[in-house]
Amino acid sequence: MIGVFGSNGFIGRHLVARLADDGIPVRAVSRRQDPRFTGRFADTVDFIEADLTDPLAMRSALEDIDTVVQLVSTSSPGLGNDLLVADIRDNVLPQIVFMQGCIRAGVRRYVFLSSGGTVYGRSSGIPFRETDHTAPLSSHGLTKVMVEKYLRMHGEVDGLDYAILRLANPYGPGQEFRKGQGLIPAVMDRCRRDLPVRIFGDGSSRRDYIHIDDVINAIVATLHLEGVPHVTLNIGSGTTLSVSEVVDEIEAVLERPILREYVPVRQTDVDISQLDIGLARRVLDWSPSIDFRSGLERTLRDGD
Amino acid sequence: MIGVFGSNGFIGRHLVARLADDGIPVRAVSRRQDPRFTGRFADTVDFIEADLTDPLAMRSALEDIDTVVQLVSTSSPGLGNDLLVADIRDNVLPQIVFMQGCIRAGVRRYVFLSSGGTVYGRSSGIPFRETDHTAPLSSHGLTKVMVEKYLRMHGEVDGLDYAILRLANPYGPGQEFRKGQGLIPAVMDRCRRDLPVRIFGDGSSRRDYIHIDDVINAIVATLHLEGVPHVTLNIGSGTTLSVSEVVDEIEAVLERPILREYVPVRQTDVDISQLDIGLARRVLDWSPSIDFRSGLERTLRDGD
Repeated sequence: MIGVFGSNGFIGRHLVARLADDGIPVRAVSRRQDPRFTGRFADTVDFIEADLTDPLAMRSALEDIDTVVQLVSTSSPGLGNDLLVADIRDNVLPQIVFMQGCIRAGVRRYVFLSSGGTVYGRSSGIPFRETDHTAPLSSHGLTKVMVEKYLRMHGEVDGLDYAILRLANPYGPGQEFRKGQGLIPAVMDRCRRDLPVRIFGDGSSRRDYIHIDDVINAIVATLHLEGVPHVTLNIGSGTTLSVSEVVDEIEAVLERPILREYVPVRQTDVDISQLDIGLARRVLDWSPSIDFRSGLERTLRDGD
Repeated sequence: MIGVFGSNGFIGRHLVARLADDGIPVRAVSRRQDPRFTGRFADTVDFIEADLTDPLAMRSALEDIDTVVQLVSTSSPGLGNDLLVADIRDNVLPQIVFMQGCIRAGVRRYVFLSSGGTVYGRSSGIPFRETDHTAPLSSHGLTKVMVEKYLRMHGEVDGLDYAILRLANPYGPGQEFRKGQGLIPAVMDRCRRDLPVRIFGDGSSRRDYIHIDDVINAIVATLHLEGVPHVTLNIGSGTTLSVSEVVDEIEAVLERPILREYVPVRQTDVDISQLDIGLARRVLDWSPSIDFRSGLERTLRDGD
């Protein structure tokens, strides 16, 4: 059985829904389950309410789990570096304990969602390749790199198979503004409250935005991947948009002007983040298929 | 003033003695000071007894410190991976807090002793270069990589200059067997007790052994380095010896046979660890100058 940990988050819900629709046995583990969500899949999905930091609860949550998809993350790229120490204590440490629990429980494969937007920093040329050095500038990126390194060690020393997916900026229905997830919910929140959109810097900083359906396709392809015990893959759209362009696009879809307010850039932000997704295309036989305009239309139609 | 943190350890004592002899103002900070050592430099060195994990004590220990040499490490390559979580909690976390304290205190430069023998794992060709990927197989190596990554982030985001010295296996007078430091003290301990020397595997695993005086020369050259804000350097002898060869050498110097007992290899050990020291030679204008036989003779003469 596949265990999705952090199943009640943005990516978790989409993944659980997709696996359930595909008829794949799945256990969905989250600190807090939402009855509006669990109700839809009550017959097909094994929902467990448990905290990743609770080793006893994890022991039973890991029973009969062959593959773990680890989506739990308490840090966020937006929180800056004030929480460096808290991020290690509350995010990295529990994940290392959890990994060890997985090995003890006989988990064969571990899929970890890392952050393509923050692990590379400014160290490399554009686009970022998986072979580039990791040099994060944010606490979020540092915690991701740490977990990656521990996972690799467990891969070599303990024989745990793993896939590390370094994800670009995902967007789509279900992203929550109040959790600080993504640019689109933030813009939509300001629009709804008739406030100007806050843009860090001059709006020229570029990111790789990928629709959640393309992300889920990549994760599912990773779950079906056989014979590749250890792999690290960038998952992105392969292209970039500037913040200004994203706001322009939202303006076009909403057919209304959006006020903009420019605020000083954050030091932990990189100017451009673009992922080379050639390896994922080849290894997963996968391609992003949703262009930004139509992805945005779907998102705003289905509720951002 | 230069602050040496972890000044009462093997490397710390040699470094403090050398800086004092060179007439360089130095503060020597250690959890516990040894009067036999501090007495020798009472007039020239500012000794402080303080724990790195105590932020208040560190605040005063960092006053007027321009350059920090960070030697404190509670993890050890020999301890294996049972202590992964404890190593993060008790070693990495306090170091991150300490780094932040250094930035607040106005420290300009941070010299960190990393581990050339464990940060590379088996990922790269021999010899290891600084540009190779880090892929540690041991908790010790993982903690070192974590601290390196946080230091680099502080370098870029907070403008802290840093030098990371990835040290091979240092040896020399003052290494302590009871702290699990190094092969030579372990061999000497067994010899003294007329017990066979325990060798992991078949004794063919190769390491890069560097005499402490060469290490100190490299650190001092790093302290004198100007105009290089961020640098990561391998510090080693440039050659390797197998465990068997080291025991052979000790046998030759002691002029007595040493019994050997072979025990199973540890999974976290790499077969060979050799550092490319070309970059350190060029950047520091430094070279290791003590060959193993004469370094060993000095060590056994001066007390291992």
